[in-house]
Amino acid sequence: MYKLVLIRHGESTWNLENRFTGWTDVGLTPTGVAQAQEGGRLLKAAGFEFDVCYTSVLKRAIWTLWHALEELDRTWLPIVNDWRLNERHYGALQGLNKADMAREYGDEQVLVWRRSYDTPPPALDPGDPRGQRQDPRYAQLAPEQIPLTECLKDTVERVLPCWNEVLAPAIRSGQRLLISAHGNSIRALVKYLDGISDADIVGLNIPNGVPLVYELDADLKPIRREYLGDPEAVARAAAAVANQGRA
Amino acid sequence: MYKLVLIRHGESTWNLENRFTGWTDVGLTPTGVAQAQEGGRLLKAAGFEFDVCYTSVLKRAIWTLWHALEELDRTWLPIVNDWRLNERHYGALQGLNKADMAREYGDEQVLVWRRSYDTPPPALDPGDPRGQRQDPRYAQLAPEQIPLTECLKDTVERVLPCWNEVLAPAIRSGQRLLISAHGNSIRALVKYLDGISDADIVGLNIPNGVPLVYELDADLKPIRREYLGDPEAVARAAAAVANQGRA
Repeated sequence: MYKLVLIRHGESTWNLENRFTGWTDVGLTPTGVAQAQEGGRLLKAAGFEFDVCYTSVLKRAIWTLWHALEELDRTWLPIVNDWRLNERHYGALQGLNKADMAREYGDEQVLVWRRSYDTPPPALDPGDPRGQRQDPRYAQLAPEQIPLTECLKDTVERVLPCWNEVLAPAIRSGQRLLISAHGNSIRALVKYLDGISDADIVGLNIPNGVPLVYELDADLKPIRREYLGDPEAVARAAAAVANQGRA
Repeated sequence: MYKLVLIRHGESTWNLENRFTGWTDVGLTPTGVAQAQEGGRLLKAAGFEFDVCYTSVLKRAIWTLWHALEELDRTWLPIVNDWRLNERHYGALQGLNKADMAREYGDEQVLVWRRSYDTPPPALDPGDPRGQRQDPRYAQLAPEQIPLTECLKDTVERVLPCWNEVLAPAIRSGQRLLISAHGNSIRALVKYLDGISDADIVGLNIPNGVPLVYELDADLKPIRREYLGDPEAVARAAAAVANQGRA
């Protein structure tokens, strides 16, 4: 039996400003730092040990990992950055306010953009300065690998190769993994691991900074999935995520 | 021609308390964080780019790197932790106050312990709780690889294999390296690169948080070595290091 821990980054500056973030590289708020530290303390109190950490190339997930590792007294653990663990790309919505968009286009349309499984938001223009084609962290990728928008289905399609090629083999080799990632890259993993339907994944919200612990069998099928910490606090945190897109 | 940047960690809590630190894993002070950030800003202002970062398994060097990378907007760069970049092991002096020791044993004796090339301080007892033989970050090492004390000569002898096996090949392959390390692991590298004698290395002090830039030729021989930033501030910082061991 294996254990795997996933943690969504703490509150970011654009979570606080209620803006669509996607691949925009924004930092944590002081609340986000505190959430990351609390996540680390929960893991330490529960006696977790890790061999290797994975995260995205976005600093809100990276700093969340760093702060959690400080609390675990494990700053020296190896960390692998993989762009495929990035947040879903939010296309032309990146930088815009979720409530403004809800007032302009209606709650329903924003919910479609936020949660529809296979309808992506409007795409960024390839020359848009909000895009990532000039960003050195993606320099080894072909331009067509760098999205201009994504629906969750697209995110699943890039996260799963990371699971199959990197994460699952590491787990099978006996390494204990801590993965610090994003709402939608974690939803992609949860959807796959728990076999959640395209329709049901819409209602699943991942709270910020709360360690999500999987117990997996020898075939990496989930035996158990649970959040660490006070269940009511976890439920409130997930509800807060669900309500972000309301006018 | 290659460039290589070394940075000594910012002020640690035990620098501030004037205690011998060695392999004890203490954190940065707020001043140390500010020094690391300033180091990052100096590198950014000078237009430095890096491909990979190396650091020790001690958090004062790791956090220094993390804070510098934040200022460089390069938190996503790969980081390799190598125990051979650790500070010199300070043996049975670890945790003791430098000025107390100078009052007890005299300035001269403390200078020998701090700066003699080949006289190590008294060794830790293998069972001393200040030792590292139970520390999981060294679990892959044979017990005899984990020092109980070191003189600078011992530190040079473990740093050089890291240079020859890891750092030099990476530089030759065209990667631009940022190395965040410690006073004595950096002195070991500087001694080797610049061919400084056993006698002269005693007088060389590395200031905290100031990027040290090497330009190397095709054989990795130094063409130039300079600190970034205001030369007077750098000189004051190095003098502060030199004076730590006085009663």
